[in-house]
Amino acid sequence: MEFELIEHLRRRIPSHSRLLLGPGDDAAVLQMADIDQCVMTVDLLTDQVDFELEKVDPRRVGRKALAVNLSDLAAMAAEPVAAVISLALPRVGGLELAVKIYEGLLPLAEQYDLAVAGGDTNSWDGPLALSITLIGKALSGHNTEQPRPLRRDGAQPGDRIILTGSFGGSILGHHFDFTPRIREAIILNQKYNLHAGIDASDGLSIDLSHIVKESGCGAILDLDAVPVSKDAQRLAAQLDDGSTSLEHALSDGEDFELILAVSPKEAQRMLTDRPVGVLLTDVGLFVEEPGLWQTDSQHGKRKLIPRGWEHKFD
Amino acid sequence: MEFELIEHLRRRIPSHSRLLLGPGDDAAVLQMADIDQCVMTVDLLTDQVDFELEKVDPRRVGRKALAVNLSDLAAMAAEPVAAVISLALPRVGGLELAVKIYEGLLPLAEQYDLAVAGGDTNSWDGPLALSITLIGKALSGHNTEQPRPLRRDGAQPGDRIILTGSFGGSILGHHFDFTPRIREAIILNQKYNLHAGIDASDGLSIDLSHIVKESGCGAILDLDAVPVSKDAQRLAAQLDDGSTSLEHALSDGEDFELILAVSPKEAQRMLTDRPVGVLLTDVGLFVEEPGLWQTDSQHGKRKLIPRGWEHKFD
Repeated sequence: MEFELIEHLRRRIPSHSRLLLGPGDDAAVLQMADIDQCVMTVDLLTDQVDFELEKVDPRRVGRKALAVNLSDLAAMAAEPVAAVISLALPRVGGLELAVKIYEGLLPLAEQYDLAVAGGDTNSWDGPLALSITLIGKALSGHNTEQPRPLRRDGAQPGDRIILTGSFGGSILGHHFDFTPRIREAIILNQKYNLHAGIDASDGLSIDLSHIVKESGCGAILDLDAVPVSKDAQRLAAQLDDGSTSLEHALSDGEDFELILAVSPKEAQRMLTDRPVGVLLTDVGLFVEEPGLWQTDSQHGKRKLIPRGWEHKFD
Repeated sequence: MEFELIEHLRRRIPSHSRLLLGPGDDAAVLQMADIDQCVMTVDLLTDQVDFELEKVDPRRVGRKALAVNLSDLAAMAAEPVAAVISLALPRVGGLELAVKIYEGLLPLAEQYDLAVAGGDTNSWDGPLALSITLIGKALSGHNTEQPRPLRRDGAQPGDRIILTGSFGGSILGHHFDFTPRIREAIILNQKYNLHAGIDASDGLSIDLSHIVKESGCGAILDLDAVPVSKDAQRLAAQLDDGSTSLEHALSDGEDFELILAVSPKEAQRMLTDRPVGVLLTDVGLFVEEPGLWQTDSQHGKRKLIPRGWEHKFD
């Protein structure tokens, strides 16, 4: 029963200093007087697309649904503020499923000091779908008191392409268990003059193409420098279909690492400082000519066709 | 194709003074420096539960999905600020469907000066599901400069039960075409000392029971005074199943009118002033003893079992 679930959740969902009125009314009320610019994002996850419910603990699904949204806030270098969660639940077992989804996401919300402001929970004859909306606080950037959210459209020719972490093979588990790069993004945006950024959700090559397109420039990716994950190597070995671990790193998606555009000088400073605990790698260059290229020591510069995850309609 | 849809929507979605960065980045950025308290709500609508896609123009589905959320803001007497929209679309015809859903909701967004900040659009093997999240600005209430959102939990024994509009029979079309009571709620909350309020989505009796429960009091509903809609009369006549138009008014749900708790003096003032264009009716009394009762000239006071819409899990 819906009201039974609401009562359960009202007991479980922790209070939060911003939450003047929590779940149970027609809307939540949040204290936001300190916020000049608010960022807002939504991500929808569906059964058989973003997870296979029959093969996974629903707690991991709940965690992932929140984590991918947090990764979008990381891509804006914003501080998490509040979430609302909507669940379309299968009729059979829906109540138990909802409870487990919340069990999976609540610890992550707490870890990022995120207020769980409310939700909507419906049962229906369809499969599980989860939609989570987050709002966040845009923080001041490098050398400014003003809010300076990280955007996709500021890459400049000559900028270096900097990545956090390593790429590929997320299907082996990382897409459930990854750490959204909130902390890293906030530190990097405050210490360095970041020109542009995105989180790698669709795949390194396709997400790099988003920056390039929005910024009206091009990019050359140095394949020799791409940080290929151990999972990408394991996956390439397991599949044995001729795909290389590098190809997995370029196109698997759901790495949820950051792709950043910074001036060569700032890149140098960042790579020397190493101000965050995760790997930072320089993998190439933004250029004036629109388009995407790859290069390596053996073959030189040639076109890179962005490949990755895209929702297909018929 | 997802990106094709995003491009279409970026051309269609109007700019807005609050929208510093609109759809197309990892998150939208909103100017909110004037907002002390933000309200936040989400509503999920699913095929075969909230509409039957094979029987209705998808534009009306889009309009309804936004309107039910606006009605939640009305229930808080809040001013609409921004929306994000997530759509789980069937694979076949999904693109066309999404375009029509947006065609249905964009005019309503414009009417209420709501910024469409972004969305997420996935295709899957399931039916259509739509989740919309709204944020709003909590406005100052009667005789205060401070934000004073309308809540469910402030009804006091002795308060009158005041309704906007008429009730019942929404299934005949009103549940698609209703006007969210934003304007009325804001005017009433500013001119009168409202103690509590809710929008009638689940049904008059069940929504009244929500106020009573949250406020820790009871209520006596005067059946003779309930404003029964023409649709309730038409539906009772059509169904010919022994149900009365009054029963429809009490339990059909999706009226999206306001149920308010105000002191007798304020109620009198409100009913004399008639400050909004819609019908205002006094339908009873909040009382100290917890519970819900009905009364009429023929039968006197007896228990009222709240009936209405509730999502069922097995």
